[in-house]
Amino acid sequence: MAKKKNTLIPESTEGRTRVVIEHVIPEINEGRFAVKAVPGESIHVEADVFCDGHDHVMVRLLYKHADDNDWSEIGMALINNDRYEVDFTVEKQGHYLYTIEGWVDHIDTWQHDTELKIKAGQRVPLELLMGANFLEGMLDKATAEDKPLIEEAIEIMRNEHRNEDARQLAMSFRMTEWLQRYPERKFVTRYRELPVYVDRAKAGFSAWYSMFPRSSAPEPGKHGTFQDQIKLLPRVADLGFDVLYLPPIHPVGHQFRKGKNNVVTAEPGEPGVPYAIGSELGGHDAINPDLGTLNDYKQLIAAAKEFGMEVAMDLAIQCSPDHPWVKSHPEWFSIRPDGSIQYAENPPKKYQDIYPINFESPDWQGLWLEMRRILLLWAEWGTRIIRVDNPHTKAFSFWEWVIAEVKAQYPDMIFLSEAFTRPKVMRQLAKVGFSQSYTYYTWRTAKWELEEYLTELTQSDMKYYYRPNFWPNTHDINPYLLQGGHEPYFLIRYFMAATMSSNYGIFGPTFEYMIHEAYPGKEEYLNSEKYEVKHWDWKRETKLTYLIRIINRLRHENTALQFTNNLQFCRIDNENIVAYTKIHTNGNRILCVVNLDGYNTQSGWVQLPLRLLGKNEYDYFRVHDLVTGAMHTWQGEWNYVELNPHILPFHLFRVEDLN
Amino acid sequence: MAKKKNTLIPESTEGRTRVVIEHVIPEINEGRFAVKAVPGESIHVEADVFCDGHDHVMVRLLYKHADDNDWSEIGMALINNDRYEVDFTVEKQGHYLYTIEGWVDHIDTWQHDTELKIKAGQRVPLELLMGANFLEGMLDKATAEDKPLIEEAIEIMRNEHRNEDARQLAMSFRMTEWLQRYPERKFVTRYRELPVYVDRAKAGFSAWYSMFPRSSAPEPGKHGTFQDQIKLLPRVADLGFDVLYLPPIHPVGHQFRKGKNNVVTAEPGEPGVPYAIGSELGGHDAINPDLGTLNDYKQLIAAAKEFGMEVAMDLAIQCSPDHPWVKSHPEWFSIRPDGSIQYAENPPKKYQDIYPINFESPDWQGLWLEMRRILLLWAEWGTRIIRVDNPHTKAFSFWEWVIAEVKAQYPDMIFLSEAFTRPKVMRQLAKVGFSQSYTYYTWRTAKWELEEYLTELTQSDMKYYYRPNFWPNTHDINPYLLQGGHEPYFLIRYFMAATMSSNYGIFGPTFEYMIHEAYPGKEEYLNSEKYEVKHWDWKRETKLTYLIRIINRLRHENTALQFTNNLQFCRIDNENIVAYTKIHTNGNRILCVVNLDGYNTQSGWVQLPLRLLGKNEYDYFRVHDLVTGAMHTWQGEWNYVELNPHILPFHLFRVEDLN
Repeated sequence: MAKKKNTLIPESTEGRTRVVIEHVIPEINEGRFAVKAVPGESIHVEADVFCDGHDHVMVRLLYKHADDNDWSEIGMALINNDRYEVDFTVEKQGHYLYTIEGWVDHIDTWQHDTELKIKAGQRVPLELLMGANFLEGMLDKATAEDKPLIEEAIEIMRNEHRNEDARQLAMSFRMTEWLQRYPERKFVTRYRELPVYVDRAKAGFSAWYSMFPRSSAPEPGKHGTFQDQIKLLPRVADLGFDVLYLPPIHPVGHQFRKGKNNVVTAEPGEPGVPYAIGSELGGHDAINPDLGTLNDYKQLIAAAKEFGMEVAMDLAIQCSPDHPWVKSHPEWFSIRPDGSIQYAENPPKKYQDIYPINFESPDWQGLWLEMRRILLLWAEWGTRIIRVDNPHTKAFSFWEWVIAEVKAQYPDMIFLSEAFTRPKVMRQLAKVGFSQSYTYYTWRTAKWELEEYLTELTQSDMKYYYRPNFWPNTHDINPYLLQGGHEPYFLIRYFMAATMSSNYGIFGPTFEYMIHEAYPGKEEYLNSEKYEVKHWDWKRETKLTYLIRIINRLRHENTALQFTNNLQFCRIDNENIVAYTKIHTNGNRILCVVNLDGYNTQSGWVQLPLRLLGKNEYDYFRVHDLVTGAMHTWQGEWNYVELNPHILPFHLFRVEDLN
Repeated sequence: MAKKKNTLIPESTEGRTRVVIEHVIPEINEGRFAVKAVPGESIHVEADVFCDGHDHVMVRLLYKHADDNDWSEIGMALINNDRYEVDFTVEKQGHYLYTIEGWVDHIDTWQHDTELKIKAGQRVPLELLMGANFLEGMLDKATAEDKPLIEEAIEIMRNEHRNEDARQLAMSFRMTEWLQRYPERKFVTRYRELPVYVDRAKAGFSAWYSMFPRSSAPEPGKHGTFQDQIKLLPRVADLGFDVLYLPPIHPVGHQFRKGKNNVVTAEPGEPGVPYAIGSELGGHDAINPDLGTLNDYKQLIAAAKEFGMEVAMDLAIQCSPDHPWVKSHPEWFSIRPDGSIQYAENPPKKYQDIYPINFESPDWQGLWLEMRRILLLWAEWGTRIIRVDNPHTKAFSFWEWVIAEVKAQYPDMIFLSEAFTRPKVMRQLAKVGFSQSYTYYTWRTAKWELEEYLTELTQSDMKYYYRPNFWPNTHDINPYLLQGGHEPYFLIRYFMAATMSSNYGIFGPTFEYMIHEAYPGKEEYLNSEKYEVKHWDWKRETKLTYLIRIINRLRHENTALQFTNNLQFCRIDNENIVAYTKIHTNGNRILCVVNLDGYNTQSGWVQLPLRLLGKNEYDYFRVHDLVTGAMHTWQGEWNYVELNPHILPFHLFRVEDLN
């Protein structure tokens, strides 16, 4: 038989803490990563909170900005089944924390039980004395205004001759208010602190225009410059874009320089791929002199600002064989057994013009510090948006550190992750700090694919940390659907990108001029701008340029389109039509209907979420097509739509009340 | 413009750790609580594991018993989409830990890439030299057997003249084996350690028979004793039960003693409710002398053992007003403003014969230590199973501490939680240490309710920590369905309890003799045994006693019925028939079919999980009804069943191969 041990209860235990808090949302990896938000955004918090027995619990949400000394506190409301909820609003940019506290609310339990006894006609003299004792405990905390009232209440509850007054008082709303205001906060369970990071508004709402600055010269055959680019700003601004994104602007390497259509050896005079970064003229901290000077770059940023635009740079952490680091820091690369540096490979393919960086370098700290230096340098030069090329081939821990370091000094900095890889890797990059992320949108074309993917983005945990940025094309991707050059498909893919996601972008002018010829068998452009300088007729107008202008304007005029997670699909029994609402608490209610069939007219009955639209089954209301100006009076849940893709494959309805 | 800070990289950071491990199952509240198992049970572990880029990762599960010095290690296999899995088996009772390690597997990446290059016809001299270097790194760890082979391989890979041999070697399975056996374990990510608690087998497989020992006297009108109880052991053992559970056996209080049918005042000579614990004869550490002495109790335990049975005691932490603690420890109760002790209430109802314990007592430590003393005392007297009455009205932290304390000295101890309350509270009690738990089974009667509830128990996270114990009735619950006394319903409810759940129990002989008269309007028994001494004719046999004997035997003969989480429902398009399989890896395959309609014959086509049964669509096989002995030859996925409830409302089929 075992012998008793003299185990004592650990000193640190407070055995009277009876409340459990768990299953909190939002919460990313136990609070290791921050929930993302923009100023003014409301965060919906839920948690399971319960204690043993039948006592009531008090549940409070606490939150504060990193700059605040004190926590703000709001009560959480019971949904059902021991689950509580509340919304709180983050007003300022920066780091917030939130947590939940819960404790057994003896006073509330007392009021509830006493009320039941009074209603059952019982005498409650002891209960009234207990009430008086509870009130006495509040006196220390009470305001000057409440204090005399509470003192009076105590007297009533202790006065046997005022029994009826005391009973009324015990059940009164005033009593309830005091209980809420001056809780008996004993044996509190406090949940771990969870972080929120509030970016500036642009992180949540942006329209990107991507172009190669070297293709901006007014005359054919010339290498464009930042000064040429400045002259094109009015056009981009007029289309309604607010981020101008430029592929790398550093000196381009010479060794193994690629020619037109990615041929292995460039002809003399060919400009090379801007992603083969570095030459004798410098590396990631230098500017390609063919584009201009640092001063020109700064002028471009300043000029863009006048048009309400920002310039996004491209960060591709890789080197041409001519990059200065190859000599100064060979230890940052992988070295092969013959002492040579390992070039990029995707076996059996070889990319000898690119040396990848080895993030397992023995001098990884030196590498990290150098990257920080470079990013802070570009920040100092005015850069506030960085699109990162292939971030998924660099260590997560590096991104987590460098993004935090840069944002500590430049909180306005926005990082866009260009990772097209496995889902969990893309998510992890968003978790470690990327403000926005590319998505699989480019390849989601069928109705079920779009519904499934958008539901994942906007309804799963991803909604808390992954801000999608939708692109119908990029300079790397000429999607199969668009390779036929069929105009309705360009309209469809553009429209959904710009209305499903509050952040989106196009690679222009390839997109708006419907360039579609593909490199045979690939999802890439023939005569891709990545390998050559192009010349464009910037004055040309198309149906697309016309509609882009309108849609970008409507995005600014309709708050509901400035968010992504408010998207809800509507049922419509036609596999070729997708319908979705976007609703904002300010009353802006948008309904988009898209015909995915680029060739045939499609129709169907769309089911509206009447409750969300604030309508009843028999209400009449107006749907106002903000693109065509057409207005229809609709009634009830199911309404008819019909879309001819040769005219316009989509509706952008605003739901309006009839006068 | 902000100024650069000289932030350094924290010393503790290893920036080259590239692997992420997350979303591990099983994992209960981030490892705060243990997964439950029994010896020999296999635990299925899954996790998301990935790194940046395209390198391969090595993923290993590590586990150990608390008594082991070293970790056992097994490789985890990729399912898809960066998710890995493996099973490990816990052999011994006690505490286990497991965790996951992952690292970038450069050698495996090298072999994979080299193979692609070789297959593409490329020359790979540098790759072979890299291979030689990897092999060299293994020499330190290699066994005496492997070492010379590895040395030879190195020589081949470095010999330009044995290029073809080297290429074959690089791609060889032998090379792969070495890579697995001697991994280059660098920059390892290790997940947090997660606990498993392995109980003795009885915790997972038990059949309980609950009865009042005071009703065991052979003559009517006499108070039964432990010695009388001993004489009834052959009957209970013959029915096939292995746990004999007795409601509290302590002295019963006098003040406010309840009479027959719960009347407020007992007549002289009435025995009272055994839950009103304590009198001048003692409290929780004393035995009601009407039942016998401590020695009689020990004799009962010993006698039960000879019949393969154990005795479960009842722990109800509450006191009658006559309990010794009322005088010796008034601080353990709630004191009202007039100095009196607070009795139990469920406003407006009052239970003046019961004083609840106040777990927020200033002397909570004293209370905890006293409860530990009492439990260790009963353990010393031979008790190894404790059914806890209303554990949900006592603090979770108390249970967590006291169960761990008792099991540290008596690892065989089993605790059953009798909590019928909100779902999250019931779950928390299981998490903090209860070995088994009562459930809502008693009230789940419709097919959809049973399917939904059993799916929750066996497929949600609950399967890891919540061991259900199914009861068709208890001494507190006379369910409405049984109040009509309709025999088929007794058979149905009994059969499902005993075959759905590996742990179940009945309150007898009330159950097997189909006592069903209810206290009017309540789910309680009329003339309940809680308030009076009963006398039974123990020789009486019924259809139920006949079937109980058979089912209990079949539970022992069929391993598949000794587990609960292996339950899977089968489709059958009749709302009155529920069908489920239980399959064990040893080849035991059970199919249960139950007609829920107690009055009418019901039939339908049941869909079998052929793959799980190891059958193909055209295979013939036998279903053998182990209750009636009937055998049917079935074929394929859909087969016909028909059940007349007046004959037998269920099939217990064993699926057998045809010879």
